Amino acid sequence: MASKTDLAIPTPPRTVISVDAMGGDRGPAAVVAGIARSAAKNPDIRFILHGPQDVLERLVAKRKILTDRCELRHAEGVVTMDAKPSHVMRHGKGTSMWSAIESVRNGEATVCVSCGNTGALMALSMVRLRKLPGINRPAIACLWPSRNPGGFNVMLDVGADIRADEHDLLQFALMGASYARNGLDLPRPRIGLLNVGTEEHKGRAELKAAHDLIAVAAPANDFEFVGFVEGGDIPSDKVDVIVSDGFTGNVALKTAEGIAKLISELLKEAFKFSPLSRVAAMLAYTSMRRLSKRIDPRQVNGGVFLGLNGTVVKSHGSADATGISAAVKLAFQLSQSGFSERLAARVASATSPLQDGRKIEAKSGNIK
Amino acid sequence: MASKTDLAIPTPPRTVISVDAMGGDRGPAAVVAGIARSAAKNPDIRFILHGPQDVLERLVAKRKILTDRCELRHAEGVVTMDAKPSHVMRHGKGTSMWSAIESVRNGEATVCVSCGNTGALMALSMVRLRKLPGINRPAIACLWPSRNPGGFNVMLDVGADIRADEHDLLQFALMGASYARNGLDLPRPRIGLLNVGTEEHKGRAELKAAHDLIAVAAPANDFEFVGFVEGGDIPSDKVDVIVSDGFTGNVALKTAEGIAKLISELLKEAFKFSPLSRVAAMLAYTSMRRLSKRIDPRQVNGGVFLGLNGTVVKSHGSADATGISAAVKLAFQLSQSGFSERLAARVASATSPLQDGRKIEAKSGNIK
Repeated sequence: MASKTDLAIPTPPRTVISVDAMGGDRGPAAVVAGIARSAAKNPDIRFILHGPQDVLERLVAKRKILTDRCELRHAEGVVTMDAKPSHVMRHGKGTSMWSAIESVRNGEATVCVSCGNTGALMALSMVRLRKLPGINRPAIACLWPSRNPGGFNVMLDVGADIRADEHDLLQFALMGASYARNGLDLPRPRIGLLNVGTEEHKGRAELKAAHDLIAVAAPANDFEFVGFVEGGDIPSDKVDVIVSDGFTGNVALKTAEGIAKLISELLKEAFKFSPLSRVAAMLAYTSMRRLSKRIDPRQVNGGVFLGLNGTVVKSHGSADATGISAAVKLAFQLSQSGFSERLAARVASATSPLQDGRKIEAKSGNIK
Repeated sequence: MASKTDLAIPTPPRTVISVDAMGGDRGPAAVVAGIARSAAKNPDIRFILHGPQDVLERLVAKRKILTDRCELRHAEGVVTMDAKPSHVMRHGKGTSMWSAIESVRNGEATVCVSCGNTGALMALSMVRLRKLPGINRPAIACLWPSRNPGGFNVMLDVGADIRADEHDLLQFALMGASYARNGLDLPRPRIGLLNVGTEEHKGRAELKAAHDLIAVAAPANDFEFVGFVEGGDIPSDKVDVIVSDGFTGNVALKTAEGIAKLISELLKEAFKFSPLSRVAAMLAYTSMRRLSKRIDPRQVNGGVFLGLNGTVVKSHGSADATGISAAVKLAFQLSQSGFSERLAARVASATSPLQDGRKIEAKSGNIK
């Protein structure tokens, strides 16, 4: 005879996301509005929210949907946008950012989301979560609108560090592949290495060396290496993951955002130009909304820090409720897929023979 | 009493542009169509056209506007798009590209235009025209659509070389300023140095060193230095000239082109989506044409090689008649302003005290 316990339908484990309420350009109200939106869409999500208790209590009380689903953690200090990472590393204890990372460190939450100062967030994450064994430089991965069926490509590093040698670039390829498998559900992602040309003789010495290392690592690590790609290929459908050093990646990302913004402004002006174009604007409204949703940076909001013991999602500093909600969605998805554990296992299996700097032969087994 | 000679209206000297007819993706027909278009718009322009005599004769004969305004120079060889620059440097004699550069070298033409292989064109230009005294690395400058009143910003280097130290970056600033004065008619251009952040402590060591060198050079060289700028600032109105190493600049340029292309494709799809949006597309036609003209890469076609004894304009390999004509227009403008001579004078006056690697105090006098 089955006991009562056996008969009970098991409650699916709720995913807990640790959220830094402070440090974004729009303040904690936007963050609370964002997580409320996520809570309404997704019944399986819970939050630990970090910041000044009194401020957060008032904001959360206004959102019924957050009742019993959002735990508050008092933290008085705020990391400002102009704070130097080195200073925050030494004196950041007691800030909401520190506290938010701490919840991932101690296992209460699976992923941390913050829209604060990127440099400080990376510095604190490095100090508190520590790098994965075998990883030399963590990286920030972001999503790009693309022509691929899923609508997005992954690019890394977009700004964790300003340099990367060939071994770092290989690790970026491994981490990017793992992220694409778990975040975009691509079983065998295609990896490209960003360069100024696709010919093998082009580019800097470390790129040529990385080209060879990544090509060798591809078969055992369940990704396809498409070789060098150029800036114009980042949104293309011939690649899923674009690997780059953090300096170039950051410039490319900000350049693309700048151009997209310029075009969207010019488009608005064009629609206002004449009475005829104003009528056109009304008729095209739905189509335009669909387009702007596709290329809206808020919809792909969330750089993911890869290579640490735990996952941190960095949302845009200027993120509004839509942006925060997109970052939370990404955090949830990564948490559900067990991304942190899979990435750690993948890196461990791939990089142990790498220690001698020569070869990668580890079998990946069934690690996703 | 005035003599007859005094009374005669002097004929303005016609500007001669040397054009490589071969090596572009669309072949010599597109090139001839492009120069015919320029000839129709501009009565003061003449051409020396380089390529296989019989092919060119037939193409030019079809364009009445080119009668007596286009001299042919037979050159049998063609530099292909996949030719290695080092090979072309050794064996390029007898190609249309070589011949086109030769016309600038021997003074028959003021500017050379080619839509062939960029690496080969730079290599041949370096060998035949030689670097300006005082210049270590030549650079390719291109125009970006921007929010500035003139509609364009200058960026360099976008791919002449893959590296640049602080002294190279200073030279890029001087050359970019000179180009903006002569090509965009900005008396006191604002120069920005591309980095991953605007704070002075950010970025690579050579960028910090270049920051200081350029700041010191600004007052004596009639430009304003706005400090570090980010990728998003490239099309902004807070800067006129963006200085970067050629690797980063090339990636940024191609990334921007890729994003602009993606958005324009998505825009077309959006307009086709429903009967309503198709009507909207018709009504918005004129406004959209204006917009697409503004961001059409063909309209800003022409990377300019700076730092050589003579000016070379590199047109896109895929340029059609519109693109070629835009490149010719730029070449004409630079020729009219006496850009090559002004740049040489400017570099000579600024870099002679630079030789000792310490200071730049040269007075620019009335050199534009």
